[in-house]
Amino acid sequence: MEKKDFLKDTIEHIDIKKYNVVPMIDAMKDMAFQARNLNRGAEIFNMMQKDKECAVFLTLAGSLISAGLKGVVVDMIRNNMVDAIVSTGANIVDQDFFEALGFRHYKGDPFQNDAVLRELAIDRIYDTYINEDELRVCDETIGDIANSLEKQPYSSREFIIEMGKYLDENDQYKASREDSIVYQCYKKGVPIFVPAFSDCSAGFGLVHHQWNNPGKQVSIDSARDFLEITKIKIHNKVTGIFMIGGGVPKNFVQDIVVAAEVLEFDVPMHKYAIQITVADERDGALSGSTLKEASSWGKVDTTYEQMIYSEATIAMPMLVGYAYHKGSYKERMERRLNDVLSTVEVKG
Amino acid sequence: MEKKDFLKDTIEHIDIKKYNVVPMIDAMKDMAFQARNLNRGAEIFNMMQKDKECAVFLTLAGSLISAGLKGVVVDMIRNNMVDAIVSTGANIVDQDFFEALGFRHYKGDPFQNDAVLRELAIDRIYDTYINEDELRVCDETIGDIANSLEKQPYSSREFIIEMGKYLDENDQYKASREDSIVYQCYKKGVPIFVPAFSDCSAGFGLVHHQWNNPGKQVSIDSARDFLEITKIKIHNKVTGIFMIGGGVPKNFVQDIVVAAEVLEFDVPMHKYAIQITVADERDGALSGSTLKEASSWGKVDTTYEQMIYSEATIAMPMLVGYAYHKGSYKERMERRLNDVLSTVEVKG
Amino acid sequence: MEKKDFLKDTIEHIDIKKYNVVPMIDAMKDMAFQARNLNRGAEIFNMMQKDKECAVFLTLAGSLISAGLKGVVVDMIRNNMVDAIVSTGANIVDQDFFEALGFRHYKGDPFQNDAVLRELAIDRIYDTYINEDELRVCDETIGDIANSLEKQPYSSREFIIEMGKYLDENDQYKASREDSIVYQCYKKGVPIFVPAFSDCSAGFGLVHHQWNNPGKQVSIDSARDFLEITKIKIHNKVTGIFMIGGGVPKNFVQDIVVAAEVLEFDVPMHKYAIQITVADERDGALSGSTLKEASSWGKVDTTYEQMIYSEATIAMPMLVGYAYHKGSYKERMERRLNDVLSTVEVKG
Amino acid sequence: MEKKDFLKDTIEHIDIKKYNVVPMIDAMKDMAFQARNLNRGAEIFNMMQKDKECAVFLTLAGSLISAGLKGVVVDMIRNNMVDAIVSTGANIVDQDFFEALGFRHYKGDPFQNDAVLRELAIDRIYDTYINEDELRVCDETIGDIANSLEKQPYSSREFIIEMGKYLDENDQYKASREDSIVYQCYKKGVPIFVPAFSDCSAGFGLVHHQWNNPGKQVSIDSARDFLEITKIKIHNKVTGIFMIGGGVPKNFVQDIVVAAEVLEFDVPMHKYAIQITVADERDGALSGSTLKEASSWGKVDTTYEQMIYSEATIAMPMLVGYAYHKGSYKERMERRLNDVLSTVEVKG
Repeated sequence: MEKKDFLKDTIEHIDIKKYNVVPMIDAMKDMAFQARNLNRGAEIFNMMQKDKECAVFLTLAGSLISAGLKGVVVDMIRNNMVDAIVSTGANIVDQDFFEALGFRHYKGDPFQNDAVLRELAIDRIYDTYINEDELRVCDETIGDIANSLEKQPYSSREFIIEMGKYLDENDQYKASREDSIVYQCYKKGVPIFVPAFSDCSAGFGLVHHQWNNPGKQVSIDSARDFLEITKIKIHNKVTGIFMIGGGVPKNFVQDIVVAAEVLEFDVPMHKYAIQITVADERDGALSGSTLKEASSWGKVDTTYEQMIYSEATIAMPMLVGYAYHKGSYKERMERRLNDVLSTVEVKG
Repeated sequence: MEKKDFLKDTIEHIDIKKYNVVPMIDAMKDMAFQARNLNRGAEIFNMMQKDKECAVFLTLAGSLISAGLKGVVVDMIRNNMVDAIVSTGANIVDQDFFEALGFRHYKGDPFQNDAVLRELAIDRIYDTYINEDELRVCDETIGDIANSLEKQPYSSREFIIEMGKYLDENDQYKASREDSIVYQCYKKGVPIFVPAFSDCSAGFGLVHHQWNNPGKQVSIDSARDFLEITKIKIHNKVTGIFMIGGGVPKNFVQDIVVAAEVLEFDVPMHKYAIQITVADERDGALSGSTLKEASSWGKVDTTYEQMIYSEATIAMPMLVGYAYHKGSYKERMERRLNDVLSTVEVKG
Repeated sequence: MEKKDFLKDTIEHIDIKKYNVVPMIDAMKDMAFQARNLNRGAEIFNMMQKDKECAVFLTLAGSLISAGLKGVVVDMIRNNMVDAIVSTGANIVDQDFFEALGFRHYKGDPFQNDAVLRELAIDRIYDTYINEDELRVCDETIGDIANSLEKQPYSSREFIIEMGKYLDENDQYKASREDSIVYQCYKKGVPIFVPAFSDCSAGFGLVHHQWNNPGKQVSIDSARDFLEITKIKIHNKVTGIFMIGGGVPKNFVQDIVVAAEVLEFDVPMHKYAIQITVADERDGALSGSTLKEASSWGKVDTTYEQMIYSEATIAMPMLVGYAYHKGSYKERMERRLNDVLSTVEVKG
Repeated sequence: MEKKDFLKDTIEHIDIKKYNVVPMIDAMKDMAFQARNLNRGAEIFNMMQKDKECAVFLTLAGSLISAGLKGVVVDMIRNNMVDAIVSTGANIVDQDFFEALGFRHYKGDPFQNDAVLRELAIDRIYDTYINEDELRVCDETIGDIANSLEKQPYSSREFIIEMGKYLDENDQYKASREDSIVYQCYKKGVPIFVPAFSDCSAGFGLVHHQWNNPGKQVSIDSARDFLEITKIKIHNKVTGIFMIGGGVPKNFVQDIVVAAEVLEFDVPMHKYAIQITVADERDGALSGSTLKEASSWGKVDTTYEQMIYSEATIAMPMLVGYAYHKGSYKERMERRLNDVLSTVEVKG
């Protein structure tokens, strides 16, 4: 088989707008186990939407965008259902920005011999294939963007805005950028934070940039990320967090409550908190730690919290679809927190 | 109950030097399932030790240091069994540096009511307690270190060297620093990378620093981290990776093979690779992805790779203990990669 | 709080007939991970329905009926979507027959103190409560049925037919029996096998019966179960298995292919096989073993097999709902395998 | 490759007597997560041994014997560390009795193509191979034993005694029977219950027997199993349960407390209870349900209970090895519960 035989069937993103799951999720309220948890998670997410004061943080960890969940996120952005995003680099750069450049993910086989794939320069994510040559183009594009910027420290958020601008200014991406998280957030002023920004395709581009620009260079300041997102908490007392997977994004967004306190602001814990994950708590790692545990740290209020133990491709479209078809988002305002961050009078 | 009643029984770090597990692990070779995997992982780790050309990378994710595994890591450092470390911030700052400052972790109860803990300012990690007031001192110490530095971008590695230096220069930590990863790495020239450095206690200190030093300030450049660790790969063609948990450290250390290629160096894949984890591959996330999958990306050679599906507190002491009691490390040299990074003639 | 305060909110069974999930499940075909697996599982289940020659076996393990999945199973029975059932005792006796007697399951709290529940004679299944006094009535009813029967060995299937008859003959259960698996299978001639029949509420009733009837007594012959279900395979060459959870039912239904061979019949492997489970294969246990592994044993053909790694309360209504709304079951005949087993000319 | 190339490296059973793990397990007491749980489980198991009044029940689920754990179980039997066993059929018949007949398990590869194995009549259990022809001999031997017995109902325990007797009376098994669970239990009067006895190789033999002996035949009465094991509880008030995996054996042994109550005996809950498993509680299934949950059912006292979340091949040798090297078993008596069951004056 040749390379093109492996890269044939494209991943398509599910469109939650088409499926009104509300009656089914409502019925799950009176079942048990994860169906009931899914119902409660969906209800809490809907409460976040109805609470006009609530700034909603979405965290993304795991290979979500390559798995067909990009549309779910983009619909949330378009409809003001999410006000800030914290993500791993893979979702934002290797997968979303990659698709915005016109590339695609392909349906693959988890039992395929990896030596064959290696030979053909096809990268595998469980049951999904990526054309490695295209991924190198993505890396290089990041390098080009870095080369074009003023040589100074940036937060990942600031750099990702530049990525959105790049898409906006290059008409060749007109079709492919439309359903991009990076692009839509750029348009809607929604901040995206990637606290481990070099840990992805962006890292390759930036390494290339710094290697070739010794001395004066673009750098990515992760402390600045943390300061910026903390400022959001300071300006939006009421917050809700919707976490897909765990990892750095989960920890980062929970920590901002404490960070605000460290800066001597008196902010409440996150009022709403839900997490979709398959990780379990018994190895003591953060990814599977319960939201009750987080409350001991003063990060999350326990009145409206729910863990949903399910793989995200199944649970996320249902949970977000529930809130979407409830329509509560319609009364929400564009928060444009990117604008707030660049203009407000906050010290620091 | 008062706070002191909860913070009574300290976590003690296991001392692998005392338990010769070699015969038992050898017997596991002829069993099945994870016992056999543990044996093969231990044998591969021992091969890394015997291979004098091999630079060994250790990655740490999950709450390992608070769980009693600090001694295992420190023994590896002291005996040249590991040449570079990539970790989450929690392990290095909140837990190791925290203990180096003289604080301790306490045995707790996973079923304890978290509202009670919150009231007493006790933070819980599954079955372990932390005095939150002491954690604030740790945050502040990081802030003080930042305040004392020249205002410029640092890699996390460079900043962590400053943390080691701080411990070295303050004799009040003489006793508590001795078994610290940060301190021993400082002494032995072993680089520590924390690619999401603001995502931990360090973040609180740095936010405080930046908030109070607008304009000119210390920043943490995660791209620089990636460049530095890539340089290590360029200088040490033969590499082995020993991963505890997944997350950013796993991805980061695997990616350096590709990064070196992006810089047009022809480097081999990681020759040896083992991971201890409970994550599974079926949600497609990186943490549980197989090392065979990594080989499709050109990151890991599949000749000597092994996944060990076990919680780390049980498997890690046995696996490292095996290599320790085999004694192969005795012929290894101090690599002092920190020195190499600051002196070698590499462009960039 | 009193007992009645805990036993207030009843579990209600989801009605898949109300929710047309076909378009959403179709969309999942082009996603990744478990969404794609769910789609393929649903398609294979639909193929079983369309294949008029195919006898469909359903296996049930885990607390499914108490969790709100009874309606899903009953709808399958009513619509000839399933031709035989193999189950744990808990689902059939403690949960289904229990509800047929007019008792209910209640929504509970997984974090409730169990000592309090013990005091009140409330039994807990994760987040679900049962009135223990009512469970004792269920045990006794089984004992009464045993007392009324001729003293000889029965297969579990034969005994469960007697349970259905008991419900049929006692009009006080007119309302509660209507949506019962035991009752509907009785009416429709669908065999139910519980290979570990004493391992549930039935066991308590039978122990009571045997204790009080030393010598001549009703006994439950598990070998006879195996012989009977093997006869079904011999009479229905084309078979499909739909497994919820693993355990004894999974093993039992897979083994009948081999059993038929042992009796020197030449039967094909199961043509279709799907399993919904959260168990994983890495501990080598049967529950999480892959269907590919089963093919090495000659039990399952690998052309149409799919594992779906999801908790059942979420995945089962969607998967069965897909086939239901596709409507393929409409051309299926009542197989009435109970009648076949009592009349056909098979040796043994 | 030919069949013999796959069936080359035999599984060897670990000998816990050789490895004194006491100091290492003691050190785990002051760690966290599963290491600490393993320590507590080992301490509770040691308490069971020291408590001379305590009858110890061992339950076995999962492929344990084929995985190299037979020696651990046999050492427990030889040293009076266990007084009764409840198991799945696979462990006792397909694996232990199979090896007693002189056959072996082989080290295999979990990534091997199953179609190749199918062709060669090699059965796979994750990473372990079995010669299917030898398994057919095991089935037939069971059939022969059934043919030789008086035609009446037997408990699985009674049938398994006949299997032990068969081994004892046939000198050709002199070498291979020595380390057999079935044989050693026969010698030591330790009852073995397999509540789903037809769900294994025994089932094939019995189906063959019943098919060829219509009318008068050997039957296996699972209710009788339950009555017999309940009698043990009635005669031994103080009991401890040591569970490897979950499934039917876990449920069965917990249920005997309730069964004794149903017979109007006033017996205490199981005083000690530990379980080694990787199953989790979040799907509500019995296998992963906590021992705290079991206490709501009145089955298990919560003073001395511990879940250990680990794969058994790693945790079981360490836990049992701990108690073995502590030596407390030395003061235990042979309980010979098989003798008790056949002689005591109990009604029923």
